[in-house]
Amino acid sequence: MQNQSTPIKQILQGLYRDDIVKVQGLVRTFRQSKNVAFIAINDGSTFESLQVVLGDGLGDNLYEQLGTGAALEIEGTVVASPAAGQSWELQATDLRITGPAGSEYPLQKKRHSLEYLRSIGHLRPRTNTFNAVFRLRSFVSHAIHRYFEQRGFYWMHTPIITANDCEGAGEQFRVTTLPRITSDDDFGQDFFGQPASLTVSGQLEGEALATALGKIYTFGPTFRSENSNTSRHLAEFWMIEPEVAFADLDDMLDLAEDFIISIVQQVLEHCQSELNFFEQFVESGLLQKLQAVSREPFARITYSDAVAILQKCGEDFEYPVQWGADLQAEHERYLCENHMGKPVFVTDYPADIKAFYMKLSDDERTVRAMDLLLPGIGEIIGGSQREDRHDVLKKRMEQFGIDCHAMSWYLELRRFGNQPHAGFGLGLERLLQYLSGMGNIRDVIPFPRAPRQI
Amino acid sequence: MQNQSTPIKQILQGLYRDDIVKVQGLVRTFRQSKNVAFIAINDGSTFESLQVVLGDGLGDNLYEQLGTGAALEIEGTVVASPAAGQSWELQATDLRITGPAGSEYPLQKKRHSLEYLRSIGHLRPRTNTFNAVFRLRSFVSHAIHRYFEQRGFYWMHTPIITANDCEGAGEQFRVTTLPRITSDDDFGQDFFGQPASLTVSGQLEGEALATALGKIYTFGPTFRSENSNTSRHLAEFWMIEPEVAFADLDDMLDLAEDFIISIVQQVLEHCQSELNFFEQFVESGLLQKLQAVSREPFARITYSDAVAILQKCGEDFEYPVQWGADLQAEHERYLCENHMGKPVFVTDYPADIKAFYMKLSDDERTVRAMDLLLPGIGEIIGGSQREDRHDVLKKRMEQFGIDCHAMSWYLELRRFGNQPHAGFGLGLERLLQYLSGMGNIRDVIPFPRAPRQI
Repeated sequence: MQNQSTPIKQILQGLYRDDIVKVQGLVRTFRQSKNVAFIAINDGSTFESLQVVLGDGLGDNLYEQLGTGAALEIEGTVVASPAAGQSWELQATDLRITGPAGSEYPLQKKRHSLEYLRSIGHLRPRTNTFNAVFRLRSFVSHAIHRYFEQRGFYWMHTPIITANDCEGAGEQFRVTTLPRITSDDDFGQDFFGQPASLTVSGQLEGEALATALGKIYTFGPTFRSENSNTSRHLAEFWMIEPEVAFADLDDMLDLAEDFIISIVQQVLEHCQSELNFFEQFVESGLLQKLQAVSREPFARITYSDAVAILQKCGEDFEYPVQWGADLQAEHERYLCENHMGKPVFVTDYPADIKAFYMKLSDDERTVRAMDLLLPGIGEIIGGSQREDRHDVLKKRMEQFGIDCHAMSWYLELRRFGNQPHAGFGLGLERLLQYLSGMGNIRDVIPFPRAPRQI
Repeated sequence: MQNQSTPIKQILQGLYRDDIVKVQGLVRTFRQSKNVAFIAINDGSTFESLQVVLGDGLGDNLYEQLGTGAALEIEGTVVASPAAGQSWELQATDLRITGPAGSEYPLQKKRHSLEYLRSIGHLRPRTNTFNAVFRLRSFVSHAIHRYFEQRGFYWMHTPIITANDCEGAGEQFRVTTLPRITSDDDFGQDFFGQPASLTVSGQLEGEALATALGKIYTFGPTFRSENSNTSRHLAEFWMIEPEVAFADLDDMLDLAEDFIISIVQQVLEHCQSELNFFEQFVESGLLQKLQAVSREPFARITYSDAVAILQKCGEDFEYPVQWGADLQAEHERYLCENHMGKPVFVTDYPADIKAFYMKLSDDERTVRAMDLLLPGIGEIIGGSQREDRHDVLKKRMEQFGIDCHAMSWYLELRRFGNQPHAGFGLGLERLLQYLSGMGNIRDVIPFPRAPRQI
């Protein structure tokens, strides 16, 4: 057998007509009829599998080991396929099984529930569904890096272990090396000599880096210890957080819109096999939804206008709509799905329901915040212009009970070379749910972390 | 003043001759002479600063606020510069200070020690040194993604919070939401219902993904709670871990060599300003070192041959050289700096000093492991072919005291669709030390984490 193997992706592109090649991968399906057998083999290089024909009784003593899930190497000749639905197939001349899967293999040919597949996280990437999801995840992640790099942003790694509590939300995991914790005094003996947590956002450190480098973004894991078992929450998820010096809220609306549209367009162009699979098996109408989003400008309304619209619309909401209260999922969905029929930026939220670092407007009731709401999924991006006035920021921190001494470095950014700046955060998994139609966020990350799930 | 600003990078490329542009950034230096003043302004778009000429007494009432570190917006005309060392300068016509820095600004014109700068992590990115380091860090990180994406690798996010202990080393941070821990029984009430830690490697999960997707890599944070205060250790660092199905150790040597050479070549081509700065102020001879590495094949020797060389060389080592003992830093340096004079792969280490998952050779004394040693920095990559025989792996796990029940999923990869596979791990910060010459690893990551440092 040859030393070098050939990616199935290239074979299906027609680059190897009549050539003898070696392929390596896993059996997706196996069927035999008389003196010939057919294997669909997948090597991960593309979503599609390659049909292999075992003629002349080749490997017929191995048929028992050739079931779904077996790993093998096959050498053969690439020929135009007479079968429907495929252009190329491999006429095998040599075959080597590196590992059969056997009758106990949990992924037999039949379809499995997503719940069941979650219980075998080490094997589910071998199914069509998760193969498509994780290939999409990788493509989108690369596309995000390309997007920012091409626009002069620096990828900055902000710390994962932190002594800050960015949102003041208290939903943080503790990080410790202490075998026992009997009082808060113990943390003086801990690895960092003080309490330490997993970050909920890289924004604050990102601001420090943006003042020096102009345009930066983070792309890394973030953590919430929220005890919620929903299809939209993970304890560990990946965030993208751009931060731009000399920028205001309008700049962030423009950036976020251009960013989302660019990613959707690239996915439409480069992930056709995966999208077709999702359209057929996961979300009917997915392609149309994505095409629509990639064409039209997003709507932009203030929170106050949104409240007025919701109050007048005559809809029977479960939660009351009242200026000063946070918008609930049902309100957000009504706004973008029913009222606007497209993605909507809601801006200028009441100061009391948003974070301390958002810039207070002249009305002193609202902050220059924005949420991007997408039809079918709700909030996907949250951002703001940052409060750049030292005295106002300090007062807001005190109001929110933030320790100004521990956060003096953050205040100092407003004392030395202060500048208007703004940024936003995007949850990668929410975006992937939107792009794939997958209903449960635990199905768009390889190894989901949630309460009692690890 | 114009709405849109222009990146200084583009101005210095000569794209705006005689145009009126606006620039935004921080003052690096300010000097005045009679009725004219000069500002060197940096906006992060490039390592270089732009000289701005304030003629006709423009802003002379603001001179006090124009010291190093002030943030400002300037409009003016781009003209060919009569001064040496620069091609273009800006003749300012309008000036707005968004934030002065004042006399208390910690980064005045004089040079500061790296130790001092570590104590002001939020401001040190504004210095030339850290501007160069973090720009290099971003470039290299992007180049790493490009390298793997172009070769058909998928970027996979393996979990950060884990119940595995990959290396069996016990140097892991605990992750918990318990306010008090008085006994190990408490972990039943913890967020995940069992003990959880920060990952030391994404390899094991990466193996599961490689069996399905063929070629994957991770690029994410990893953690060691090792209590070592050295210039080569961090508690939180970023790792790149490719994992390849149907691959053996030789494939990994080829991949690692091609990868390192590719990154070095790209840095030489695209980071000239930064490298020139490092050459002048950080490591004399850096450019020559990198050019040499990018040209010549790396050496490859077995551990047994390395031991023989070291025993015969006549060098007076602090630690004895003995087959079965780990190579010390002094031995590694001798091998690549003195004996070979270039990067060296050492392969086939004694089984007893390497991890349980490495493939046992037929001699049953060595495993198919490799370390890549670089002159001046030592080990930068560690990898291996993985043990793919179920019974051998199980025995090794038992020998190493690994809980086979908790790790049954990992063993199952050898039961279902087993295949030879291999991978390696690279520490991003070690690579950046090598590329920049920076002596302390805490100076190549924006916010370093180490014992009692957070």
